[in-house]
Amino acid sequence: MSLHIREVTADNWRLVAGLSVSEQQTQFIESNAYSLAESKFENNGVSVGLYDGEILVGYAMYGWPSEVNQSAWLDRFMIDYRYQGNGYAKQFLPLLLEYIQQQYACQKIYLSLHPDNEPAQRLYESFGFYLNGEVDDSGPVFGVVMELRVNK
Amino acid sequence: MSLHIREVTADNWRLVAGLSVSEQQTQFIESNAYSLAESKFENNGVSVGLYDGEILVGYAMYGWPSEVNQSAWLDRFMIDYRYQGNGYAKQFLPLLLEYIQQQYACQKIYLSLHPDNEPAQRLYESFGFYLNGEVDDSGPVFGVVMELRVNK
Repeated sequence: MSLHIREVTADNWRLVAGLSVSEQQTQFIESNAYSLAESKFENNGVSVGLYDGEILVGYAMYGWPSEVNQSAWLDRFMIDYRYQGNGYAKQFLPLLLEYIQQQYACQKIYLSLHPDNEPAQRLYESFGFYLNGEVDDSGPVFGVVMELRVNK
Repeated sequence: MSLHIREVTADNWRLVAGLSVSEQQTQFIESNAYSLAESKFENNGVSVGLYDGEILVGYAMYGWPSEVNQSAWLDRFMIDYRYQGNGYAKQFLPLLLEYIQQQYACQKIYLSLHPDNEPAQRLYESFGFYLNGEVDDSGPVFGVVMELRVNK
């Protein structure tokens, strides 16, 4: 596998909008179209496609950097339902965390997830994220906040 | 009623993304989130909210101007299912056509719609649009093209 991260542009946004999680998971995450719109209108999040070679298998958004807090967010990380079960989430997560650290001088990376999304919570915990007790009610999907301390 | 058109910005995009047509109509039109993303990534369409006073009741996208052809497109015109049946479509359509003509020196306005969307076709026909025999297969929803000759 040749995994890489590529920014979403006019060339690939339609493919990215066409990805979706499985039907049981749709309650846990916004549609990619919603996230794409958000990253453009809010202008502080960046949308990226997750590729295995030339195949688009997933999507994530990151951004909302705080210089004061030396923090940034990873958001809306998803693998399309057609490519789930291949270990992509586990392999892309460290790549994404590294990618975010290349963009921002951050000591903390936050993410939020639906409080019932236990498989995702376990995945993030296995990479050092922990629930920090905060909540994220800014979007249509309510989330609890997880935090990772990054040691550079 | 005090109907007006307002561009979609960081201030109102979430509300616009939250509008939807009735369940039977979803086959006929892309989600607003998809259209919002499209207008930003393609960068040649403009998203507008349709307001009755301060109440957001609908959405449309317009743009894709051609100087050579002296034409522009009206696209994704929708009234939220909670506000349908109040005559809004009939009242906003002439406002939108006027609005588009203010932005562009156009002699023709195109739109595309799902070939089975007969109520919409009748609405557009009542304002002078006719099926011009072309098709629009650029988006996830296949459409037939209607055209209006604008006499300035």
